[in-house]
Amino acid sequence: MSLARVHNFSISLDGFGAGEGQSHDAHFGHAGDRLHEWLFATRWWQPGGSGGVDHVFAQEHRPGIGAEIMGAGKFGHPGWHEDPEWKGAWGPNPPFHTPVFVLTHHPRPPIEMEGGTTFHFIDASPAEALETARKAADGQDVRIGGGPTTIRDFLAAGLVDYLHIAVVPILLGRGMRLWNGLEGLEKDYAVEATSSPSGVTHVTFTRAGI
Amino acid sequence: MSLARVHNFSISLDGFGAGEGQSHDAHFGHAGDRLHEWLFATRWWQPGGSGGVDHVFAQEHRPGIGAEIMGAGKFGHPGWHEDPEWKGAWGPNPPFHTPVFVLTHHPRPPIEMEGGTTFHFIDASPAEALETARKAADGQDVRIGGGPTTIRDFLAAGLVDYLHIAVVPILLGRGMRLWNGLEGLEKDYAVEATSSPSGVTHVTFTRAGI
Repeated sequence: MSLARVHNFSISLDGFGAGEGQSHDAHFGHAGDRLHEWLFATRWWQPGGSGGVDHVFAQEHRPGIGAEIMGAGKFGHPGWHEDPEWKGAWGPNPPFHTPVFVLTHHPRPPIEMEGGTTFHFIDASPAEALETARKAADGQDVRIGGGPTTIRDFLAAGLVDYLHIAVVPILLGRGMRLWNGLEGLEKDYAVEATSSPSGVTHVTFTRAGI
Repeated sequence: MSLARVHNFSISLDGFGAGEGQSHDAHFGHAGDRLHEWLFATRWWQPGGSGGVDHVFAQEHRPGIGAEIMGAGKFGHPGWHEDPEWKGAWGPNPPFHTPVFVLTHHPRPPIEMEGGTTFHFIDASPAEALETARKAADGQDVRIGGGPTTIRDFLAAGLVDYLHIAVVPILLGRGMRLWNGLEGLEKDYAVEATSSPSGVTHVTFTRAGI
C-alpha cells in the first residue's frame, strides 16, 4: 500500500504555515527561518544537533518515500513561471532525491537535477496528481511536501494518510493558514500530540488501519 | 504584586475558543462540550477523575484569585441584556466565589449570588476594568476569564502576566478565534508546551520577572 504522507510541516501557534510577503529572497515571508529553527537544530539536519524527539520526527521525512508532490509556491517565489531558466529554490542538488511533481497552471518540460531529483510540472487535481506520483513512486509512499494550501487541498480531498505537523510557539499574526475549511478532520484519524523540550509540539494524524 | 492571569482557556487546534452559533442552549455554539472534555475528566472537576497534568493545570484556576473579569458573552447568551431578570448562565452558585466584573455596553446594578460571587457590570477599557478589579481583589490576583475576544483584548493591551491555553486536538473550522492580531506576542513571555496523555497540549505564556 502506497501512503500519502506529510512530514515536518511547521506552523505557528496561530496556524500559519508561511508568513506574509513571500518573495525570491524571503521564501517564508516575514516568518523568516523561525518556523524551521527546531529542524535546523537536529542532528538529522547537521552533525552535533539534538538527538531527541525533534530529531526522530525529522528523520521520518525520507524513508520509504518514492516521490513528492509540491505546490508552485514551494518550488519557487511568486512569478517564477515567467522565467524559463528557473530551476527552483532548492539549489543544484535538492533535498528530495526522487521524482517531484510541481503543481502549476504553467507546465514546462521536466528538469533533471543532481542527486536523483527530477522536477515534473503538472496541472492536475490533488487526486490526479497523487495517482501520477504513485506510479512514479513505484510502490513506495508519496510525500505531500507543502506549502500550506497544497496540504490543505489534499486534506480536504481526504487523500492524506499520515500528517505530521510541528507547532512552533510563535505568533506570526499573518500569512497562509494551514487549517482553513477542515472542520471535523480529526474524525478520520488518531491524533496525538508530543511536546519537545525545544518548545515545539509534534501533532500527528494517523488514518485508521494504515 | 497583583497579577492578571488566564487559566484553562481551551482552543481547538485551528485556534477557535468558541464555536459558531452561540445561543442560550449552546454556550459554545457548534463546539458543544468538546473544548472542555479534558477539564471535566479531571479529579479537580469531579471525584474519580484523572490526577495527572490536566488536573494540576486545571486546579491552578482558583488559588490566589481575588476577582474575575469576563466578557458579556461569557456571562450569557447574545441578547441577555434585554432581560432585566437574567442572572447569568452560571446557576445560583457560580464557580467564581469572588467579585466578577462583566464587560458590557449595558451596565445594570450588581447581582449578589450564592457562594461569594457578585456580578458587577461595567462599560470600561481593559486597563480600566483591570484597575477596578484589582481594587476589589484586595491584593490578590485577577483572573481574565474569557471569552476569546476578551482575552485577546487584554493580551493586545499588554495586560496579561500569565496565560494558560489548552489546545484540544479537534478542528472546529469556524467560530471565534483567540489569536487574531497578536503577532509577536511571544517576545514578552517565556513560552512552554506540555502534551498530556489526554491529547490536550497545555501552552503557558509567563511574563518575565513575575
